[in-house]
Amino acid sequence: MIAVVDGRGVREGEVQLGFDPAERINAGVTFIGHIRSQWSRGDSPRNTTQGREAGGGNARIELLASYSAGLQGLEIWQPIWVLYWMDRGPRDLVVQSPRHLPEPRGVFSLRSPVRPKPIAMSAAIITSIDHETGIVGIDTTDAFDRTPVVDIKPWIAGIDVPPTS
Amino acid sequence: MIAVVDGRGVREGEVQLGFDPAERINAGVTFIGHIRSQWSRGDSPRNTTQGREAGGGNARIELLASYSAGLQGLEIWQPIWVLYWMDRGPRDLVVQSPRHLPEPRGVFSLRSPVRPKPIAMSAAIITSIDHETGIVGIDTTDAFDRTPVVDIKPWIAGIDVPPTS
Repeated sequence: MIAVVDGRGVREGEVQLGFDPAERINAGVTFIGHIRSQWSRGDSPRNTTQGREAGGGNARIELLASYSAGLQGLEIWQPIWVLYWMDRGPRDLVVQSPRHLPEPRGVFSLRSPVRPKPIAMSAAIITSIDHETGIVGIDTTDAFDRTPVVDIKPWIAGIDVPPTS
Repeated sequence: MIAVVDGRGVREGEVQLGFDPAERINAGVTFIGHIRSQWSRGDSPRNTTQGREAGGGNARIELLASYSAGLQGLEIWQPIWVLYWMDRGPRDLVVQSPRHLPEPRGVFSLRSPVRPKPIAMSAAIITSIDHETGIVGIDTTDAFDRTPVVDIKPWIAGIDVPPTS
């Protein structure tokens, strides 16, 4: 994941859409809570694997009270998907030049948070569940503290690992 | 994945949020194209693995023209994530009673399309790429024909398979 700052400029080789996808709204999303972590802009890991290697960042999800009943059936040590909203970058770069790659690449071949729809997803392991407060501990995140969460789903090997991998 | 119909009723043991998440909008999403498939309501597979077993459904993604440059760097036979928008069901069932399970479960322990934010994700293999038309063939989908697509991301084993699985 690329570190993104407000006002990130357009780099050589990059292609802009010519419009801002943030202004073309086909549907609305609602936030169900936030990721809490010890990461902030500038010191967050590049991805969840690096986050795990760095100790996990004391990561947890704090759900809004209305949603805590939705945790029923989840178990400690179960892998889950956390879907979250990374809205700090531009959305109109359809071809990008990440600093760690030699050549520009299409946005759909990258996990960059700079994308038309800034939804990130990361696989994590549940380390604790408090059904009363709606707080779910997870073993890692690469998200800044207070990143909005849009969904939690169970990770299921039978559908989440494609056949040739 | 549960087949969902308009006007799906509330089943025994289910819990409603008390508000409609569709009406609480924190951010907007834009559709980048559509999934095309031979599936329609009532005859779609339960998940992508069943879709693959049923021949794949002649699945493909048709991107809007503005976004086809974003395919640069993707390769045939590469696994990807397809994120899509399943807006045909209710969004307020925080505890649900899927027909295939004996007991009600929290929405976050299910891959049900009935959820506060109806974003589904499925892993698939690229079978063709037409950079000119923005059409990407994929080996399977469980989505109805013309389901809106919100993102494509590369599937990456190092982050998408959690450590204990």
